[in-house]
Amino acid sequence: MNPPGKFYRLLLTGAAGGLGQVLRERLKPLATVLRVSDIADLGPAREGEEVVSCDLGDKAAVHALVDGVDAIAHFGGVSVEGPWDPILNANIVGVFNLYEAARKHGVKRVVYASSNHVVGFYRQDQRIDADDPMRPDGLYGVSKCFGESLSRLYFDRHGIETVCLRIGSSFPEAKDRRMLRTWLSYDDLVQLVTKSLVTPAVGHTIVFGASRNAGLWWDNRKAAHLGFEPKDSADGQRERVEALGPPLDAADPVAVYQGGAFVTAGPFDD
Amino acid sequence: MNPPGKFYRLLLTGAAGGLGQVLRERLKPLATVLRVSDIADLGPAREGEEVVSCDLGDKAAVHALVDGVDAIAHFGGVSVEGPWDPILNANIVGVFNLYEAARKHGVKRVVYASSNHVVGFYRQDQRIDADDPMRPDGLYGVSKCFGESLSRLYFDRHGIETVCLRIGSSFPEAKDRRMLRTWLSYDDLVQLVTKSLVTPAVGHTIVFGASRNAGLWWDNRKAAHLGFEPKDSADGQRERVEALGPPLDAADPVAVYQGGAFVTAGPFDD
Amino acid sequence: MNPPGKFYRLLLTGAAGGLGQVLRERLKPLATVLRVSDIADLGPAREGEEVVSCDLGDKAAVHALVDGVDAIAHFGGVSVEGPWDPILNANIVGVFNLYEAARKHGVKRVVYASSNHVVGFYRQDQRIDADDPMRPDGLYGVSKCFGESLSRLYFDRHGIETVCLRIGSSFPEAKDRRMLRTWLSYDDLVQLVTKSLVTPAVGHTIVFGASRNAGLWWDNRKAAHLGFEPKDSADGQRERVEALGPPLDAADPVAVYQGGAFVTAGPFDD
Amino acid sequence: MNPPGKFYRLLLTGAAGGLGQVLRERLKPLATVLRVSDIADLGPAREGEEVVSCDLGDKAAVHALVDGVDAIAHFGGVSVEGPWDPILNANIVGVFNLYEAARKHGVKRVVYASSNHVVGFYRQDQRIDADDPMRPDGLYGVSKCFGESLSRLYFDRHGIETVCLRIGSSFPEAKDRRMLRTWLSYDDLVQLVTKSLVTPAVGHTIVFGASRNAGLWWDNRKAAHLGFEPKDSADGQRERVEALGPPLDAADPVAVYQGGAFVTAGPFDD
Amino acid sequence: MNPPGKFYRLLLTGAAGGLGQVLRERLKPLATVLRVSDIADLGPAREGEEVVSCDLGDKAAVHALVDGVDAIAHFGGVSVEGPWDPILNANIVGVFNLYEAARKHGVKRVVYASSNHVVGFYRQDQRIDADDPMRPDGLYGVSKCFGESLSRLYFDRHGIETVCLRIGSSFPEAKDRRMLRTWLSYDDLVQLVTKSLVTPAVGHTIVFGASRNAGLWWDNRKAAHLGFEPKDSADGQRERVEALGPPLDAADPVAVYQGGAFVTAGPFDD
Amino acid sequence: MNPPGKFYRLLLTGAAGGLGQVLRERLKPLATVLRVSDIADLGPAREGEEVVSCDLGDKAAVHALVDGVDAIAHFGGVSVEGPWDPILNANIVGVFNLYEAARKHGVKRVVYASSNHVVGFYRQDQRIDADDPMRPDGLYGVSKCFGESLSRLYFDRHGIETVCLRIGSSFPEAKDRRMLRTWLSYDDLVQLVTKSLVTPAVGHTIVFGASRNAGLWWDNRKAAHLGFEPKDSADGQRERVEALGPPLDAADPVAVYQGGAFVTAGPFDD
Repeated sequence: MNPPGKFYRLLLTGAAGGLGQVLRERLKPLATVLRVSDIADLGPAREGEEVVSCDLGDKAAVHALVDGVDAIAHFGGVSVEGPWDPILNANIVGVFNLYEAARKHGVKRVVYASSNHVVGFYRQDQRIDADDPMRPDGLYGVSKCFGESLSRLYFDRHGIETVCLRIGSSFPEAKDRRMLRTWLSYDDLVQLVTKSLVTPAVGHTIVFGASRNAGLWWDNRKAAHLGFEPKDSADGQRERVEALGPPLDAADPVAVYQGGAFVTAGPFDD
Repeated sequence: MNPPGKFYRLLLTGAAGGLGQVLRERLKPLATVLRVSDIADLGPAREGEEVVSCDLGDKAAVHALVDGVDAIAHFGGVSVEGPWDPILNANIVGVFNLYEAARKHGVKRVVYASSNHVVGFYRQDQRIDADDPMRPDGLYGVSKCFGESLSRLYFDRHGIETVCLRIGSSFPEAKDRRMLRTWLSYDDLVQLVTKSLVTPAVGHTIVFGASRNAGLWWDNRKAAHLGFEPKDSADGQRERVEALGPPLDAADPVAVYQGGAFVTAGPFDD
Repeated sequence: MNPPGKFYRLLLTGAAGGLGQVLRERLKPLATVLRVSDIADLGPAREGEEVVSCDLGDKAAVHALVDGVDAIAHFGGVSVEGPWDPILNANIVGVFNLYEAARKHGVKRVVYASSNHVVGFYRQDQRIDADDPMRPDGLYGVSKCFGESLSRLYFDRHGIETVCLRIGSSFPEAKDRRMLRTWLSYDDLVQLVTKSLVTPAVGHTIVFGASRNAGLWWDNRKAAHLGFEPKDSADGQRERVEALGPPLDAADPVAVYQGGAFVTAGPFDD
Repeated sequence: MNPPGKFYRLLLTGAAGGLGQVLRERLKPLATVLRVSDIADLGPAREGEEVVSCDLGDKAAVHALVDGVDAIAHFGGVSVEGPWDPILNANIVGVFNLYEAARKHGVKRVVYASSNHVVGFYRQDQRIDADDPMRPDGLYGVSKCFGESLSRLYFDRHGIETVCLRIGSSFPEAKDRRMLRTWLSYDDLVQLVTKSLVTPAVGHTIVFGASRNAGLWWDNRKAAHLGFEPKDSADGQRERVEALGPPLDAADPVAVYQGGAFVTAGPFDD
Repeated sequence: MNPPGKFYRLLLTGAAGGLGQVLRERLKPLATVLRVSDIADLGPAREGEEVVSCDLGDKAAVHALVDGVDAIAHFGGVSVEGPWDPILNANIVGVFNLYEAARKHGVKRVVYASSNHVVGFYRQDQRIDADDPMRPDGLYGVSKCFGESLSRLYFDRHGIETVCLRIGSSFPEAKDRRMLRTWLSYDDLVQLVTKSLVTPAVGHTIVFGASRNAGLWWDNRKAAHLGFEPKDSADGQRERVEALGPPLDAADPVAVYQGGAFVTAGPFDD
Repeated sequence: MNPPGKFYRLLLTGAAGGLGQVLRERLKPLATVLRVSDIADLGPAREGEEVVSCDLGDKAAVHALVDGVDAIAHFGGVSVEGPWDPILNANIVGVFNLYEAARKHGVKRVVYASSNHVVGFYRQDQRIDADDPMRPDGLYGVSKCFGESLSRLYFDRHGIETVCLRIGSSFPEAKDRRMLRTWLSYDDLVQLVTKSLVTPAVGHTIVFGASRNAGLWWDNRKAAHLGFEPKDSADGQRERVEALGPPLDAADPVAVYQGGAFVTAGPFDD
């Protein structure tokens, strides 16, 4: 018998990725069985795990992956700016496959790893919230806009609840000046994913994922019901980070826009 | 001579009720004389008190009650969902009697115990503030909407200032999962009532009464001038509360709407 | 057999009042049977009518009145500022009786004659819409606030749709300078009531009732789905009206606030 | 020499479709050469035309199509709800191909045929504007959300201006009750496309495409700079349309939501 | 005896300027005596006029000018971009002198000729209203911001009502493509000034002055109480204006910003 | 060679004033050379300082003052309500001189000491943010509105970034009841000025300067990117301050409006 308040089987996609590896360890207490998946090698199943290799672009594989799970933390797919075809396969076709599978197999809750890059073309002197129109900063960002729109549809039409996490920069520590604002500690990430999985009645929620950093551009008032209260802050890392090099020129688009280096990176180079 | 910054005579209605009993003790320092009133038995007057029994629906009695007071903390009347007639008598006729009495006797400040149930039909994934349209969840809630509208009139027309307290769930401790969000500790209640009584220039203010609980639905920015800063939180009670039983089904209206059990309770059962 | 797109039995309350008399004639084509009601004498039933005398404060009478009707145009009750007791009886108790009856008898649509006096304490240089907080200008206005709140409850909880008409000044012609802004011609009134009755999916709608007058304070964008397009205007009456007398002093509250004379009239005179 | 104020070569995609056929005739005066394209047969080139057959999913073909044009009216792709694969090919891959081609070939203005189905899950008693969050009503709608997001990127990053037309229902006449609100006459369509092509400094504009119909849900104030002033109205067609059949039940999702039949249609039927 | 509804003495400043000459003729019916003023020659007094020469920067002269008037239409001062010193003298010192004089002499209503150039740095694809923050496009625009702020003070503190007219381009006809949006016909100007003078209870109102031109950027909803309903439109002048020359390049700031040529003109040329 | 992340030469105007003296000490670490200026005596230059005497109304002097500096903290000019002429000279002409000098000499960042008195006529029960329209409470406040408008122009047109500090009451300690809300400790002032100088990409930012005081009226969400996090609070000074005397009457404008005593002080006394 499954303990009350615990999922029987929770699916974590992208479990071989940077954040996936963190969550693979840390989400374990939420479920009797943690099904972990990736297209990359995950090694052998650990205690309480099921390991499933899966290309998100493969419809049949995704349906098999989702069969029997109670909830999904979807961290799979491409997570940086890059060429169109892999983004199309994993982040567009793959996300469609995932939601269709959720619908067919009766999954009622998805936590979707979106990205701050859906709003990367706001200026750094603007403060935005979840209802401001999307302004993606690259193809990766556009693919995350797609996922947010698709998940909205699956809630409005099929009642599948989703929390879209617009993750800032989740690493062990901040690596540049921009991350002094956008950094999301692993502990705060885990808190955020956990609350997104267990909070009742989330409907379709969009939440920004960042720690308590000074000068944050994102206002989470529309997601207050999640009760996400980050405990960490990049503020203590300022001295270390600023010693890494001088600031960018104030007129450099990388310094002007919230998306940082994403606003100039990517496949638009020819 | 009355000490400066202190009311000479402060009226507390509903002093025999759950919150009234708390306030009877705790508001005492604000006034030279605390006039306490209820339709239920209040026992003998304590030091510095005047005890007045009063049915709020009785106009003459209410006028006598209000005569000579400097300010009113109005906690009397029906405080739960229930049949129409008692609500009509105490919460509609009674509140009208109270404000008319305040007008005739020159009282310039009222703290009115409204309720979160004036907005109980917002969803739990919505965040609202004092200017969002009212969406009551029952007859009790509607009667509190009436009191808010009436007090607005008495400010706009007669200059009587009111702070409407949209109280969440004020008990010694949180009793269910919803109260993990809506709980208002007694200390925080006392702070809120006190600041509502003594802050200069409140005009007609609406404030939500809840402690610093994670995942709160209510935004008090429109009442920032009160300087209400709750010190307690239900967060530490989570484990105890969650052990009381499993969560509601996510599609249960009681789990979906902010009003909780009020949205299905009440006299509409025939 | 009832023709498609037509109510079988439509109830019009307040049919002996100023607007009731107009609607008694003009709503007839919408229904096979028009049930007209008032506490005042309505004369004999005309063709296609049922006449029912009814005190809205009498619960049993109201339930009998509502039994068997398909929709309600509620124009009964007190329609001017005045003493509390009649307002309480007809506009508060009466409206509660009406909605309870609608719930018990399965009526799914109500058109509720609210009033601009629910917002009469906005200044004449402010422009407001249906979501701005209510600011009633008297007891009559407060009673209409009550009706709006109550009808919101019956939609959220019981699915009974209501269109609240915040009627300006509906008379054969404008009678003073304020009415050059607030006038609602009878033709436009009839259009408004009709569209409120027949538009599908109105939910709980608040609409201001005024003709195409210059300088109107009220923005109907939140009610655009009704397709209310007034055809008349008070503008052509300006010369006649202005010849009736000089303008008020600019600092007179009657000239400053939208509610006009209501903001100083009424029972607060002792 | 090309006349001033006229495009030399204007590309119209989807020229064999319903709206494409209309525009093929009516946009001709805007350009010296009108390049028309479709995957379906377009017949022989007419005077001043170039005919190019093109599958939007074919990158090389799209790049050839766009080479040499001054502006694009993009009406190609799937225009109704349906299975995922064709939508993916034409409306997602195809739109990406188109914008990449525009970027490489220096096209600075695109008029993009989006759809009201990007917001189809708003209720019919809500009024929305271009900044309200998207709520698509099906896979077709989601694909149009994608196009809007992608075009935003190409403006923010590459300076390619786009007007997104959220077209209502553009047919010779209204065909059902919903279209009494959403109808866009062909003349008004042509005006809208024309103004979208020739107005200077449109940046990234979203505009709803509907005639002057009563009860419209969409507010075009954010697109006022286009100067779009529809001349037609479905209002005169009401009698004819209403005679086609009785109204839907008020609780039918097709009657409740703006998307109408799209909110239940589509590939989600297994 | 002065006729009711008519000013005894109305002051028009700037009466020798382009708009002043128009108003000198057209405001005459509003007053028994029209006092006209300018620093330039005004010729002899016409019937019902008083002519006063006045440098607005001369405090004593301005006080004499204002003495005895009932209301002021202030069209004096510099009305184009130019060097700082004349703007400082006439538009800053002069406006201060004027309001001080109004305060001392008990004038209760001013119509202040502000300018669209207080918001000239909004983009042409933005739509703004009176509450959007000011974004002046030059020193002239800044001086008009000063006048708006100063008049706000004199209302809040001294009860002097002002209507600030953010005039677009008021000429006999539109002279370039931008004026197809910003043109204000002389008839519409006169209507606007008249209504601003005679509407009761204007408080401190900001209104944009433009005719019914297609594609207007300015939303007058906050000034709806004035009842300003322009009758003319630049739309019929489109063909003539567009024949005057080709459009600007879309990236030219003059085409991008609402202020047009003002955003690059002026004294910042060294 | 100048250390990275440090200004070579930073100009502080008003260095002899109350806040200037604090900043003269505390801004020193930000720059290799601190140029301090005032019209009053500054004593001899301290280590790392240049001392320049300057009347802000003297254009040539201001240009000399600004020549060679990298950034400006502008605290010079009149800082209290008073007669018009000194305000005109220092706060209007002086600020114009300063921005012109900044433009000519290539200075790209200004921190401008504005004041809460640009919004002093909001009520104390209102909460405002940087986008709410200005409502100055006196001539001093109007002069600060001018500075905010002018600095907006210099950013939009010339790319000179400004942070406008709407300073509350910056003193060693709170001196009256109003300052319990508006107090800005010197440490918090220094933090605010520092972050305003060093934060990249501030554009044109308006920020309210107050410590973490309970009941603050000002919402800094629009300036979140500065990362200003005040550390001090006036709350601990409440007992001391309230003992200084009884509260004002609730109807006294000084108690009603945010500007406090400024709303009645000043030169309007004749």
